[in-house]
Amino acid sequence: VVSANGHPDFPIQNLPYGVVQFELFQPEIVVAIGPFALRLRGALEAGWGEDLSLEIRAALMAPWLNELAALRPADWTAVRLALSDALADPAWEDRLRPAMELIPDDASSFDHNVPVHVGDYTDFYASIYHATNVGALFRPDQPLLPNYKWVPIGYHGRASTIDVSFTVVDRPRGQIMLPGATAPEYLWTRALDYEVELGLILGDAAGLRWPTTAETARDRIFGVVLLNDWSARDIQSWEYQPLGPFLSKSFRTTVSPWIVTSDALRPFEVPMPRRPAGDPAPLEHLTVPDDFTWSIQLETQIETSGMREQDLPIHTVSRVNYADAMYWSPAQLVTHHTSNGCIMNVGDLLGTGTISGPTPDSCGCLLEMTKRGTQPIILPGGESRGFLEDNDVVQILGYCEAPHAVRIGFGDCSGSVETDE
Amino acid sequence: VVSANGHPDFPIQNLPYGVVQFELFQPEIVVAIGPFALRLRGALEAGWGEDLSLEIRAALMAPWLNELAALRPADWTAVRLALSDALADPAWEDRLRPAMELIPDDASSFDHNVPVHVGDYTDFYASIYHATNVGALFRPDQPLLPNYKWVPIGYHGRASTIDVSFTVVDRPRGQIMLPGATAPEYLWTRALDYEVELGLILGDAAGLRWPTTAETARDRIFGVVLLNDWSARDIQSWEYQPLGPFLSKSFRTTVSPWIVTSDALRPFEVPMPRRPAGDPAPLEHLTVPDDFTWSIQLETQIETSGMREQDLPIHTVSRVNYADAMYWSPAQLVTHHTSNGCIMNVGDLLGTGTISGPTPDSCGCLLEMTKRGTQPIILPGGESRGFLEDNDVVQILGYCEAPHAVRIGFGDCSGSVETDE
Repeated sequence: VVSANGHPDFPIQNLPYGVVQFELFQPEIVVAIGPFALRLRGALEAGWGEDLSLEIRAALMAPWLNELAALRPADWTAVRLALSDALADPAWEDRLRPAMELIPDDASSFDHNVPVHVGDYTDFYASIYHATNVGALFRPDQPLLPNYKWVPIGYHGRASTIDVSFTVVDRPRGQIMLPGATAPEYLWTRALDYEVELGLILGDAAGLRWPTTAETARDRIFGVVLLNDWSARDIQSWEYQPLGPFLSKSFRTTVSPWIVTSDALRPFEVPMPRRPAGDPAPLEHLTVPDDFTWSIQLETQIETSGMREQDLPIHTVSRVNYADAMYWSPAQLVTHHTSNGCIMNVGDLLGTGTISGPTPDSCGCLLEMTKRGTQPIILPGGESRGFLEDNDVVQILGYCEAPHAVRIGFGDCSGSVETDE
Repeated sequence: VVSANGHPDFPIQNLPYGVVQFELFQPEIVVAIGPFALRLRGALEAGWGEDLSLEIRAALMAPWLNELAALRPADWTAVRLALSDALADPAWEDRLRPAMELIPDDASSFDHNVPVHVGDYTDFYASIYHATNVGALFRPDQPLLPNYKWVPIGYHGRASTIDVSFTVVDRPRGQIMLPGATAPEYLWTRALDYEVELGLILGDAAGLRWPTTAETARDRIFGVVLLNDWSARDIQSWEYQPLGPFLSKSFRTTVSPWIVTSDALRPFEVPMPRRPAGDPAPLEHLTVPDDFTWSIQLETQIETSGMREQDLPIHTVSRVNYADAMYWSPAQLVTHHTSNGCIMNVGDLLGTGTISGPTPDSCGCLLEMTKRGTQPIILPGGESRGFLEDNDVVQILGYCEAPHAVRIGFGDCSGSVETDE
């Protein structure tokens, strides 16, 4: 446990949850503590957590985090405190040691599952810089549509293709209208892109009853993951009118394996940016008292096979802070989603939408950064990219820093591209 | 069983599956036979089905139809034949009698579940008449967008709010931009509508691996339900740009409780209508050899509280045949959905999109029929409707007729509107 001190992502102030399949056992809930994954089933068997309610302990034995997320925020905090107490007590170190698994240097060899069963996945569009940049490419005369500053725009995503970090993304095929063509063709996408997002994981089964008011929406968020909403831009531009993106997105969504809890993020809560003068105030049902966002620093990195051959390190192509980029807060996304009476379930995943800042080096996708591929980025070693090529690796990193707080991180969220001909 | 003869919906040529909760028992799979629901668990306990494989019999004991749908089409047919054989044999009548429950006259008192667990719900837009009518209201200069005749347009729907017939639909609230207003308001919808659709339920776990080719797509369809995609048109018109419908649809989707199987629909397969001269041929991957659709006659009925007070019968407001209305076939919808590598699961629900014919009395929603409420329909007793009002009941009926075949039907798919202030 001493070795958790100074760990860049997983000091004992973080305690993120994952689900790992160990050999032939049922998947188990684990907590990252420095370089270790503590198997909670083993910890319970070793006598840890005896002061927790039977309901909580049963939830910690489940093969996913839905049962824990279904309990109340006070229960989530109770588990966190029980872990902190044990980890601060040297007497516990020996007792928990058998339940500690070293996370391999090549984390991809750890058999992570998506940590919750996701019933429904919704993707928002809450960064005004992203919406403006993308809008300018598709509608130069009207980048931002009239509803943007009133409605947290979102759409339903595909739940069946959510996968956890370290997986291969098969380049999708689809209908593409090539420039100058008069008919579309069924082709491998030539405009494969990533989208850097956060994913909010909902919990608190009692609180998910309608209406989830702005006052209580923040307590519905069990935790946060990194999310990559892979996108095929040429398929998207041809298919998306009038009902929105469909096959250009549904082939794969990657999430990071560790859920960083709302509790762990508390030291990094900051006020939402003030709306610019002249912008409308949110309608009353979307007005959240003491609303906040999180200061989460995000970095996107790309590594090509050419860079690997030259032993060049993975390259950071953009940096952005979530707190600076969004027009709508986490609580506003939850409130809006329930404002029509929609039934939310524990484990529902809400993507924030691509997180982009105002400058090119803070854009959360290649579409924006390369102006639809027309201004490619240059990578170390001299390769350029308008969009992703085969064997490219895209990795998203996320971490939180604040004065008087210990840095915590999300681990990584990565995927590599292949064409399965 | 004799009483099944001449039943308009459930003769022994139909044998649709449902799932019913009997008192405190686990939900059970039932088959509609005339006025009866045969509890398959009870039938198996009475000795029926002994020639079926253990795998099939286990699937019939499940609390939903996913396990049966996951088996191969030949297994589906085997169950059907085993039922037909027993029902044709008078010796079986007494043995099965204890497992037969009379479906109450007020079918809503039967505690139906949604018959499958739906992982993902997709809604298409495959009726060219509907797309043209709706497009003309929103974009008079360009009713049909350039992609329509190439791409089976669809979008992801919300799975958590799928419910079975006979439920109350709470009128949703949402952001609405009233005519002439400069800012939206959060209001109860004033433009609540229904959409008449069919829902395809996918099965055959082995067959759902990518790619599902056009040749095999038809075998992926386990069965069909009626579907009402309730819609709030004023919320929809304000929110839907640029990512498609979201809260205007996600509050509720109703399906009929009985799945009519692909086997039962076989006598009603008809060729897809020929595309008009000048229309493009589908791309090769969407070209289905011997493609077909089903001749399914649909009727939409409305009953108001005023009509009930005057003892007026429920009123049919439109009639349409599915076979005449669609530009894309069932197999094309499945093929398109998997064409990007998207993982499909057993129990996935694919809505066809609103089924409208070319004439006003064949439109599948009020938006079209009343030209956005401007030309209300007149009901018996003199009431008019531009959109739905509280206590209105909307009922969709579906049935199949063909020469040399016994008529089969879907049962009804109904819901009533309330405002939960």
